[in-house]
Amino acid sequence: MSGDSLDPYVDLYAGRARGLIVSEIRALFAVANRPEVVSLAGGAPYVSALPLDEVAAIVGELIAEHGAQALQYGSGQGDPVLRERICDVMAVEGVRGTPDDVLVTVGSQQALDLLARLFIDPGDVVIAEGPTYVGALGAFAAAQADVVHVPLDDNGLQPEALREALGRLAASGRRAKLLYTVPNFHNPAGVTLAASRRQEVVELAQRYGVLVVEDNPYGLLGFDHEPLPALHSLAGGRNVAYLGSFSKTFAAGLRVGWVLAPPAVREKLVLLTEAQILCPPALTQLAVVRYLEAMAWQEQIKVFREAYRERRDAMLDALDALMPRGCRWTRPGGGFYVWLTAPDGVDTKLMQPRAIGQRVAYVPGTGFYADGSGRDAMRLAYCFPPPAEIREGVRRLAAVLEDERELAATFHRAGTARSDGRQTHRGEVPGPAIP
Amino acid sequence: MSGDSLDPYVDLYAGRARGLIVSEIRALFAVANRPEVVSLAGGAPYVSALPLDEVAAIVGELIAEHGAQALQYGSGQGDPVLRERICDVMAVEGVRGTPDDVLVTVGSQQALDLLARLFIDPGDVVIAEGPTYVGALGAFAAAQADVVHVPLDDNGLQPEALREALGRLAASGRRAKLLYTVPNFHNPAGVTLAASRRQEVVELAQRYGVLVVEDNPYGLLGFDHEPLPALHSLAGGRNVAYLGSFSKTFAAGLRVGWVLAPPAVREKLVLLTEAQILCPPALTQLAVVRYLEAMAWQEQIKVFREAYRERRDAMLDALDALMPRGCRWTRPGGGFYVWLTAPDGVDTKLMQPRAIGQRVAYVPGTGFYADGSGRDAMRLAYCFPPPAEIREGVRRLAAVLEDERELAATFHRAGTARSDGRQTHRGEVPGPAIP
Repeated sequence: MSGDSLDPYVDLYAGRARGLIVSEIRALFAVANRPEVVSLAGGAPYVSALPLDEVAAIVGELIAEHGAQALQYGSGQGDPVLRERICDVMAVEGVRGTPDDVLVTVGSQQALDLLARLFIDPGDVVIAEGPTYVGALGAFAAAQADVVHVPLDDNGLQPEALREALGRLAASGRRAKLLYTVPNFHNPAGVTLAASRRQEVVELAQRYGVLVVEDNPYGLLGFDHEPLPALHSLAGGRNVAYLGSFSKTFAAGLRVGWVLAPPAVREKLVLLTEAQILCPPALTQLAVVRYLEAMAWQEQIKVFREAYRERRDAMLDALDALMPRGCRWTRPGGGFYVWLTAPDGVDTKLMQPRAIGQRVAYVPGTGFYADGSGRDAMRLAYCFPPPAEIREGVRRLAAVLEDERELAATFHRAGTARSDGRQTHRGEVPGPAIP
Repeated sequence: MSGDSLDPYVDLYAGRARGLIVSEIRALFAVANRPEVVSLAGGAPYVSALPLDEVAAIVGELIAEHGAQALQYGSGQGDPVLRERICDVMAVEGVRGTPDDVLVTVGSQQALDLLARLFIDPGDVVIAEGPTYVGALGAFAAAQADVVHVPLDDNGLQPEALREALGRLAASGRRAKLLYTVPNFHNPAGVTLAASRRQEVVELAQRYGVLVVEDNPYGLLGFDHEPLPALHSLAGGRNVAYLGSFSKTFAAGLRVGWVLAPPAVREKLVLLTEAQILCPPALTQLAVVRYLEAMAWQEQIKVFREAYRERRDAMLDALDALMPRGCRWTRPGGGFYVWLTAPDGVDTKLMQPRAIGQRVAYVPGTGFYADGSGRDAMRLAYCFPPPAEIREGVRRLAAVLEDERELAATFHRAGTARSDGRQTHRGEVPGPAIP
């Protein structure tokens, strides 16, 4: 936070105010949303694929016929019928839970925040993939957690690295409280935790007494095969809090997510959410109930899936055809994101203003780490722009990366590059983000 | 929390989990909502007074015509057009603010929680009226605040008592961080802070460097006169966070509230809310915008006001006619609540199961204090039941109170009553809450 010396309230704030961080993604959005820019930055789902007239009709009926309930306060834990329907939705991925153990949240973000508040004292350790979801980093930072990253590869979280991290922490007398993971179609990495690794991850967490926070917003958006077993299923529900969301399978603007947690944890989460929001909005919850009961929601997920598959293909094809040598990227089997590693010496954060100048936006990799890593990488989202725009965006990005690669190579030959990959590899100060 | 010894996660929780408390109101609602019980307990607004068909039509149109926005993620601070309309709504009570300084929240509860998180370290002092709003106590408890009550009278918070409390804290080296107050049509006390006291409250808070949290959900629901000047207005916005809500003037089930805060505070609140919920639901926010722009919302507030006035009158008339001697109660000029003090020796918490047995529910006064006070009082809500039911509820309650008064007097004569008013003034263990 800048300007604290001028803030008249500065000596009133709680210690945790120091954990507040400005998301790199937020700072980027103001420019990325300009019409002339192709944004491969935002993770906004393609909600226009919904039959809007039908959704309008069911929500209108809901208010006209059940307004006294839909416009009224409700239960802090969430609408009981919605919690039943959520159990039906989870069952599609083989996750078993009872409505009693489901808490409805204002998107998965609130579930992350509640879990962080319930478990994290300042300085407590959270293990997360590296890279990891930026919103989770925000919730953990607000709780003043110490985030320890465990690397990913094309098969997801590396169990060996997890074992080492847990052992290292234990040896130093510290204990991780939470293991945060996005096993399916990872945000931002686009990879999926291999079936063969899942049991081991669960066993490690149980052995070290760590609660697994399994965040699964994209699980039903796989292109290639049936869903893999959830960590929650493999653990028989023990030591796992499972997070789901309707943001990607129905509509993000409703902010309806949920957490399925062991009873003792769920009981405390309900008390925390009541202190935080009293109860989630009845209107959005009952809109989801109507949607699930009156419309062919599983067919609609197929519509979304095919749209995202087409966009994923457009992005991968364009990357294959256009990216300069030295670039590598993941090949997602579902979800919204590709993770691209730039050629040696290219700093994606420093490159960002020049990319915006060439009318293409992405999120620099640093946004997805708590420790400053990620300057060699970027997240590319294919969920929102139509395929032709994706191709054009990749074309622009490839040209910028090619220029950067050549510059980096020139400076490397001239001996100015530093080996930690964090050099400002030009002699100039980066320009403003707005071209 | 009971059963912690059986909770396998007990050694994983954060310290703040110890601040989680079960609201007395929540425990009561399961029985209070039975159809045979007249509930004077809940604060549910009379949303059926809305023209539900018209609301259904505008929300349906919103989705059909602007679904790509209404079903999508939005800004963490809240929709910019809604923030403009909120400034219009605040202006009706003379409160001046710019859209930049407004944060949209998931009901006022989220604003309370965000402020508590931003300002309260464990053990920090919050000054609140005694009694005070139960949801605020929940948010302060979750932040592990030490709540110091300052008494109310028929003219609201007593400035002399506030001055003493601030001086006493300063003398003991402690400083209150927040002064939480509901100046208009207080929940639960039903009283309004007199105009003549407002300037003094503001000056005391400024002198002692305390941020005033002015919670004003009922300000537009006054029966007798124009709104009094807000503390925010008297302070010129300095040192005041002003909370508003559409829960009582439109629909509680949308969970749309707001906080108007000084820029430095607002900036941090935005970061905190992004970590907590990413952004508020677009659908509910845009529904409020449509409602304010397309419908005669000020006329609708008059409809609500007249309905609540009729119910207030029904309750006061019934109390005047039926209550046994020794009872006192407030005479609200707006809002939802009457605060009733029972005859000497009557314990409203112990009496509660017997009242439920006689098919009438209220909230015992202890729910509105952090320190166990309030056993001599209760909150009666007239907002939801129709007038005839209110009269019947008061009739049942009067009979129970009469019995209790006689019992208390008998035991008092027999010398068993204790002077602190906390005696279990019968020889028996209280029966179960469910008759």
